[in-house]
Amino acid sequence: MKTVIKNVIVVTMNHKREIYNPGYLLFENDIIKAVGPMEELDKHDLLGASLVDGKQGILMPGMVNLHTHMGMIPFRGLGDDCKDRLRVFLIPMENKAMDEEMVYLSTRYAAGEMLLSGVTSVLDMYYYEEEAAKAMDEMGIRGIAGQTIMEEGACDFSDPYEAISYGERLIKKYQSHPRISGCIAPHGTSTCSSEVLKAAYEIDSSYQVPFTLHTAEMDYEMKYFEQEYSMTPAAYLDRIGVLGEDTLAAHCIHMTKEDLDLFKRKGARVAHCIGSNTKAAKGVAPVTEMIERDIPVGLGTDGPASGNTLDILTQMKLFADFHKNETKDRSVFPAETIVSLATIEGAKAMGLHLITGSLEPGKQADLVLIETLSANMFPVYDPYSALVYSANPSNVESVFVAGECLVKDKKLVKSNLEEIRKDLVEKMKQTDFRTHMTQDQ
Amino acid sequence: MKTVIKNVIVVTMNHKREIYNPGYLLFENDIIKAVGPMEELDKHDLLGASLVDGKQGILMPGMVNLHTHMGMIPFRGLGDDCKDRLRVFLIPMENKAMDEEMVYLSTRYAAGEMLLSGVTSVLDMYYYEEEAAKAMDEMGIRGIAGQTIMEEGACDFSDPYEAISYGERLIKKYQSHPRISGCIAPHGTSTCSSEVLKAAYEIDSSYQVPFTLHTAEMDYEMKYFEQEYSMTPAAYLDRIGVLGEDTLAAHCIHMTKEDLDLFKRKGARVAHCIGSNTKAAKGVAPVTEMIERDIPVGLGTDGPASGNTLDILTQMKLFADFHKNETKDRSVFPAETIVSLATIEGAKAMGLHLITGSLEPGKQADLVLIETLSANMFPVYDPYSALVYSANPSNVESVFVAGECLVKDKKLVKSNLEEIRKDLVEKMKQTDFRTHMTQDQ
Ligand SMILES: [Zn+2]
Ligand SMILES: [Zn+2]
Repeated sequence: MKTVIKNVIVVTMNHKREIYNPGYLLFENDIIKAVGPMEELDKHDLLGASLVDGKQGILMPGMVNLHTHMGMIPFRGLGDDCKDRLRVFLIPMENKAMDEEMVYLSTRYAAGEMLLSGVTSVLDMYYYEEEAAKAMDEMGIRGIAGQTIMEEGACDFSDPYEAISYGERLIKKYQSHPRISGCIAPHGTSTCSSEVLKAAYEIDSSYQVPFTLHTAEMDYEMKYFEQEYSMTPAAYLDRIGVLGEDTLAAHCIHMTKEDLDLFKRKGARVAHCIGSNTKAAKGVAPVTEMIERDIPVGLGTDGPASGNTLDILTQMKLFADFHKNETKDRSVFPAETIVSLATIEGAKAMGLHLITGSLEPGKQADLVLIETLSANMFPVYDPYSALVYSANPSNVESVFVAGECLVKDKKLVKSNLEEIRKDLVEKMKQTDFRTHMTQDQ
Repeated sequence: MKTVIKNVIVVTMNHKREIYNPGYLLFENDIIKAVGPMEELDKHDLLGASLVDGKQGILMPGMVNLHTHMGMIPFRGLGDDCKDRLRVFLIPMENKAMDEEMVYLSTRYAAGEMLLSGVTSVLDMYYYEEEAAKAMDEMGIRGIAGQTIMEEGACDFSDPYEAISYGERLIKKYQSHPRISGCIAPHGTSTCSSEVLKAAYEIDSSYQVPFTLHTAEMDYEMKYFEQEYSMTPAAYLDRIGVLGEDTLAAHCIHMTKEDLDLFKRKGARVAHCIGSNTKAAKGVAPVTEMIERDIPVGLGTDGPASGNTLDILTQMKLFADFHKNETKDRSVFPAETIVSLATIEGAKAMGLHLITGSLEPGKQADLVLIETLSANMFPVYDPYSALVYSANPSNVESVFVAGECLVKDKKLVKSNLEEIRKDLVEKMKQTDFRTHMTQDQ
């Protein structure tokens, strides 16, 4: 099937950062075949193609959410302003109320929410990830399901090695899937032993899937490594041999220059979660210095219980405001750079840049059409500026993943949000979810 | 006419911060008559009333935008990442392309955009403000039109005293208008002479309307007052006798403890524009210390050429993330406090707290209904959390100002955004707007 999207401002995010205005894009099945200015749209290209009139909207690559926890929708908005709520009630609640079905239902919901906001690729890490993988597959999104490992056990497995085996089975199961893959995602640098980290790393790198974990995020984590090893978490990961090209470290707020040089040398990558980090008062990661070193960096929302929103447009605006203010220079990180972090650079950090993250012939048709008719989107002088400073998730008009139309007219196409929510609400009621929370508070 | 909105989570923002869930609100003509839990909704209240089913949405007071420049829609998104673009091309462009009709058309657009995002009260400052007042009046929003004065002259008047006279006529014209008033708004502490500031202050305070101006915002401003007077802008305002209860200072980024004590002593108020300030890399105003001193503070978006978005929901989220991160404490400024800045505290800073800013019998029916059915709004454990951390302007379902329904089903009721935009686009084309910009860049 051939589709032509015409009459749009095409933000390609290709190497030359070409913009076609007005432009078109042609894809066949899951593959982008052509992209260019309207005047180059060949009449014969239109033969047998279904036509989408983009009405002068902005056509951009699908956005990449590099770090989230899709199973945690039921926890969103709980204890937002409480100190140490993670250990005080999120983890206990997880152990009480989280099961396979809840992960499945919550991940479906989160995938729907992300698609509606223009996220087409997501790296999830949570428990019972086979359910997450299944949910993402059904929803049509592109995703990596990261099976989280906790040394002390978690809601799914009490033994971390059992969880690792489950993770490896998950990786194998999806090895030849066109959109979904699995990985083993240790919870963090200090919440897993070095043996567990090494075992997970070995498997992930043998399958060339991301080895992703929370890194240099928490004050107690920094203190622990200082006291225990007189080193930073980054240096520790390197010493035990798990810092390499497959390592995708989430957060990296507290990084020394040596840590950054180490990341550069080893080819490690970073998932930057500006909204979640600042809401939790944890600080602003040194992204300027990462980019100076060409360390692959992309954007993540963190889970709905941490960052609340799951869209990348919100992160782009927060990124601009925080990093400009941090460096006291309004001209650093121009909007174009921020859009690249949300798309092609995010894809690079996720290991998917050969197939997604830019609008180029040969790549997967992972596309987002942003309408420019809503009040907040006028005028558009520079599409990058409009995306970073003006847009919000409600401006996402249509979304395609691997050429499949998943969002049209701002609504999910092959699933129904209301039904997905209804199923999740039912499940939450069954597990007496609200009561657990009240008790734990 | 009597209207009952039922089946909502009522966030009253009254003194006790009462929430009714599920609750109702009854208003008659422009006045709120009753608000309370659903079980107290009297059957006889429903007689002859038109009924709105809020479908478990959140009913909150209309939000207050304390500082913006509504005439600047045509400039939105221009030179966002450029240094000193204000003097390099915004001001020259204003002098070339701005006229009465452009202010009128742009203000209509901005009022529509704000209404759609739940802003019901706005303090505007720009040029040709009689046109702005007319536009706001027609759109149905509650607003103060602040006639901006520049010592060196501006697009409307070359002589600041002529501009002051125009401002006084504007104040008089709207003195008995139920929703609109005028004020004289000198551009800033260093862009007007002390004589002009004093003349403006005298008039504003004699009519008890806000004396509002940019204060302690710019690096060059701080340097100027240090070099010229060895004092801060705040101390200077006090010395020349224009710091009082009617003074509403916008930004106040660079404030010493003495400045803050002075504001407290004099009863001066602050319009805090976190998004605009940080995007321009100017820093974060010391709001913690303002609130410790009970200085009235509310939120502003700044103009569309500075902050891009004109909604207060976006400012709430930015406020949370910046101030929590700044103070290194996730528990400071809980969501309830942030919602108060956006509503009742903003109304206080604008001088309108006796008539708007909370849902209480006797107050004006300035109401916003936020739907909770969109993907980003589930679950709602705490309505404050949902408003600050989850909501975006597209969740605004209905808006009433002085009891008049101005937004319904997310659309303007008594005006048409497309037509408003079309008129503005036509005007921009006539004045060869794009060309002016290109030349100036
Ligand atoms: Zn996380
Ligand atoms: Zn301003």
